[in-house]
Amino acid sequence: MLRRYFIISILCVFLLPVLVFSQDDKSFKIVPLGIMGGINESNLSAYMVAATGTSDYICFDAGTLHYGIEKAINNNVFNIPAEQVLKKYIRGYFISHAHLDHVSGLIINSPDDTAKIIYGLASCLETIKTHYFTWESWANFTDEGEAPLLKKYHYQVLRPDSSTAIKNTEMSVKVYPLSHSNLQSTAFLVNSNNAYILYLGDVGPDEIEKSNSLHNLWQAISPFIKSKKLKAIMIETSFPNEQPDKTLFGHLTPNWLMKEMDDLAALTGVDALKGFNLIITHVKPPQVNIDKLKSQLKAQNKLRFNLIFPKQGREIDL
Amino acid sequence: MLRRYFIISILCVFLLPVLVFSQDDKSFKIVPLGIMGGINESNLSAYMVAATGTSDYICFDAGTLHYGIEKAINNNVFNIPAEQVLKKYIRGYFISHAHLDHVSGLIINSPDDTAKIIYGLASCLETIKTHYFTWESWANFTDEGEAPLLKKYHYQVLRPDSSTAIKNTEMSVKVYPLSHSNLQSTAFLVNSNNAYILYLGDVGPDEIEKSNSLHNLWQAISPFIKSKKLKAIMIETSFPNEQPDKTLFGHLTPNWLMKEMDDLAALTGVDALKGFNLIITHVKPPQVNIDKLKSQLKAQNKLRFNLIFPKQGREIDL
Repeated sequence: MLRRYFIISILCVFLLPVLVFSQDDKSFKIVPLGIMGGINESNLSAYMVAATGTSDYICFDAGTLHYGIEKAINNNVFNIPAEQVLKKYIRGYFISHAHLDHVSGLIINSPDDTAKIIYGLASCLETIKTHYFTWESWANFTDEGEAPLLKKYHYQVLRPDSSTAIKNTEMSVKVYPLSHSNLQSTAFLVNSNNAYILYLGDVGPDEIEKSNSLHNLWQAISPFIKSKKLKAIMIETSFPNEQPDKTLFGHLTPNWLMKEMDDLAALTGVDALKGFNLIITHVKPPQVNIDKLKSQLKAQNKLRFNLIFPKQGREIDL
Repeated sequence: MLRRYFIISILCVFLLPVLVFSQDDKSFKIVPLGIMGGINESNLSAYMVAATGTSDYICFDAGTLHYGIEKAINNNVFNIPAEQVLKKYIRGYFISHAHLDHVSGLIINSPDDTAKIIYGLASCLETIKTHYFTWESWANFTDEGEAPLLKKYHYQVLRPDSSTAIKNTEMSVKVYPLSHSNLQSTAFLVNSNNAYILYLGDVGPDEIEKSNSLHNLWQAISPFIKSKKLKAIMIETSFPNEQPDKTLFGHLTPNWLMKEMDDLAALTGVDALKGFNLIITHVKPPQVNIDKLKSQLKAQNKLRFNLIFPKQGREIDL
């Protein structure tokens, strides 16, 4: 009996600080609801993100919601029913652009959702308003656009260069416009208690897009990397390197991602990026292409990022 | 040795005619790719249908394609890769109405699809043209609407009261407009070698919709039931009987379905419906509601239909 007490005491003394410290050390939890950039309707871009220790999630894009929530429940990430996760845990949607693979889950789930805010750039919200929440294509669950208005969702336009508090959370957000072929896409920089996470919607390389939007973004966020306040960048790699530049359709390959990362490294210094969390989103099927682009990213990772390939319904702690 | 030969001979003599007969007796095969009327993005209304003995499928609605095809492959319904089923087996899409849960799979899968025709009533195709295959919400893979036109799909408007040959199949189709709250929906009557199958998109009861569209449809198809040429009716039951009439949103409950079937029985006689295949589509989650509406349908089946509850990726032979 005494021996057992002794062992338990020793375990407490040594393990408790480790557990507490590792808990304290984390700033965000991410629950990927969908991780792919195409065709598989059960697994399209959507990432729930909350400050550690809270259940006040926002959702970056909303390609697949219900099926991803069910996967997360099966993995014991949530212990309430799927309907409740949708209604209670997701406090707002941040839509990077209005391509259907980034919004279909939001539209399909809207009849079962509760009142909340859809945040985005004006151009993105305008397309949602005129193409999806209309009475020909669905029902207008929002408070703007075609009458009658069901007033469940409120659109909130985000403007670059101003910070916006995220309702029903303790987080705030700044937006940066991105170039995605013919469309404007969006990067969201979320701040929780002076820790940051950056999510980019679909984006092409500056050189191909004839843009400086990524370079401007790297300039804006590089101080947060140097100060170690930025915990991760979530960025797309849609195709393996074999995809020709003329058919990139506003997306990145491992080559182009690493060129952009070189641009970032020129601002931060290479040491600041060593071990930095780079979360790869929007991988496009077929699986053979996904396997290929993952190998290429690992082989081309000369900056020594901590490359993270998210799995649907598996929590990531940062 | 002689004994084994004797047994095999006996088996051949008795079983072969049964096998051949049961093959000959069938007219259609249905592969449900998605069977639900909401929120689960991996299982939304879509039904592949082909004449028995062919792989020339059409697809009634297209809520979920890729995930349903993968399910069917896992069940050994198809033995070619999912990409090939989409490209080669599906010869055309028949969209009943443009609500997103009936078209999102078509839009999401379009980059990986081959050239084919999208059939529907003019109002439905107009919404697809102006809301989905546009350059703000997706890309225009069709040959009409916003330039540039990628010309993969061709819209073919179907007009009531005329029969249309279905390209790359030996089937033909007639359409009947239905009333689905504020929208026009569609019933497709498909003819294959003088056997028929009827698919209805979302529809409300005539009495609630202030319509006679279902009554007109029953009049049109009752001769095919009496002559036993109609093999099945695929019709929705979205909600259990507890759903109030004022929140039906253009859908049916078991009560309302059976009222409509009484109207049909007045035209065909009750004997003609005994054992007739009634395939129940568009059941709406949560599962507790689906279980309830199934029990109610079975309990209220006084006409003694053969009630069929399709399963995703499981073939039905009729």
